[in-house]
Amino acid sequence: MAITMYDLVGAEPNRRFSPFCWRTKLALAHKGLEVETIPWHFTDKQLIAKYNWERVPVIVDNGRGVVDSWAIANYLEDTYPQKPSLFGAGAGRSLARFYNQWADAFLHPAIAPFVVLDVFNRIDSRDRDYFRQSREARFGTTLEAFCADREQKIERFRQSLEPLRQTLAAQPYLSGEEPLYPDYIVFGSFLFPRSISPFVLLESADPINQWRERLLDRFNGMARKAPGYW
Amino acid sequence: MAITMYDLVGAEPNRRFSPFCWRTKLALAHKGLEVETIPWHFTDKQLIAKYNWERVPVIVDNGRGVVDSWAIANYLEDTYPQKPSLFGAGAGRSLARFYNQWADAFLHPAIAPFVVLDVFNRIDSRDRDYFRQSREARFGTTLEAFCADREQKIERFRQSLEPLRQTLAAQPYLSGEEPLYPDYIVFGSFLFPRSISPFVLLESADPINQWRERLLDRFNGMARKAPGYW
Repeated sequence: MAITMYDLVGAEPNRRFSPFCWRTKLALAHKGLEVETIPWHFTDKQLIAKYNWERVPVIVDNGRGVVDSWAIANYLEDTYPQKPSLFGAGAGRSLARFYNQWADAFLHPAIAPFVVLDVFNRIDSRDRDYFRQSREARFGTTLEAFCADREQKIERFRQSLEPLRQTLAAQPYLSGEEPLYPDYIVFGSFLFPRSISPFVLLESADPINQWRERLLDRFNGMARKAPGYW
Repeated sequence: MAITMYDLVGAEPNRRFSPFCWRTKLALAHKGLEVETIPWHFTDKQLIAKYNWERVPVIVDNGRGVVDSWAIANYLEDTYPQKPSLFGAGAGRSLARFYNQWADAFLHPAIAPFVVLDVFNRIDSRDRDYFRQSREARFGTTLEAFCADREQKIERFRQSLEPLRQTLAAQPYLSGEEPLYPDYIVFGSFLFPRSISPFVLLESADPINQWRERLLDRFNGMARKAPGYW
């Protein structure tokens, strides 16, 4: 029986843009596990309330709910050890955690000012009041003000990615010759803006973009085939 | 025969403060390899010119010179495979690279405004003109202006360490239950300010500081016994 997964959706039924859901979809693809996604809106809190959680991804595997993308990756690794490893041997799993925290605490806040107004414009009308109110409270300003002057901000954003750039200039993936879950964590953070905003965050010759292109092609182009702008 | 290592020194002969040299000393200690350090001043370029390099660390092992802390860690791992691994199995070595780039491109520039004036005041008088001129050219201002208002800047610095903090709140070391080279990379970045400046960068209860304290005790307190302020 395929695993089911609640997957954040925009107004269009195939526009899936959550970086956390992307992490899980990539982890499932890496493990070769089938998944059936259930489109989930920001305001569908009651659909996952039985799992004592308010955000996606949530997966259900043989009747068991698992929440939070990091916990899900660990669950998949431990439950399907005969499938390709998400972390590799040795300290791989422990070393992956900093990538997760760096993406959450540094990369997502850095990306937000370029895309959250586009998120607002591409989510279902039923989600818009919730999204605007919750995000404007978080950012302390309107979505419009928060996302103003993108062109003036982009150079500094690109500069802030220098640790990632230098790493990917030296090796094809964060995990070496082949991708592992740390790659999917950070790639998911770039699938988020690609899925929801036409604003191009990376220059085409940037080693980060070249890595992104390689990952777009993985799993028979799974991510490239998904609706996206760049 | 012990490995020899050129190690950056201040005016006092035991004040060793280079984060890159610390990485190498910790890697050598992890491998259980003896080292004899040769104190090296910023202006001692001619001492290492035969290795076609201008910075430390440089190690000499059985007559062979190896330069650059990342290359040295890889050399030690490959040359002494029977000694405890610096990277662990699997993708550990590849996954370590981002830590190296994050420390170099993010952490060191973030730490610099708190300590470079203290570096100037604690290096040998023969190095001061070189240090002031090269650093003021790099920073585009005087050392005094660059290091002004530390108390006003410290909260933002601490906040910028959130990815590291969240990781170390969840596990004792970046590499899991025991430290590996990624820990030594980032720990070296904190030994640099400890060695040269009384300005305290971390609050004592910070999980990053608790991790730092654990590493100060490693190798029979090797780092804790070295001259330092906090």
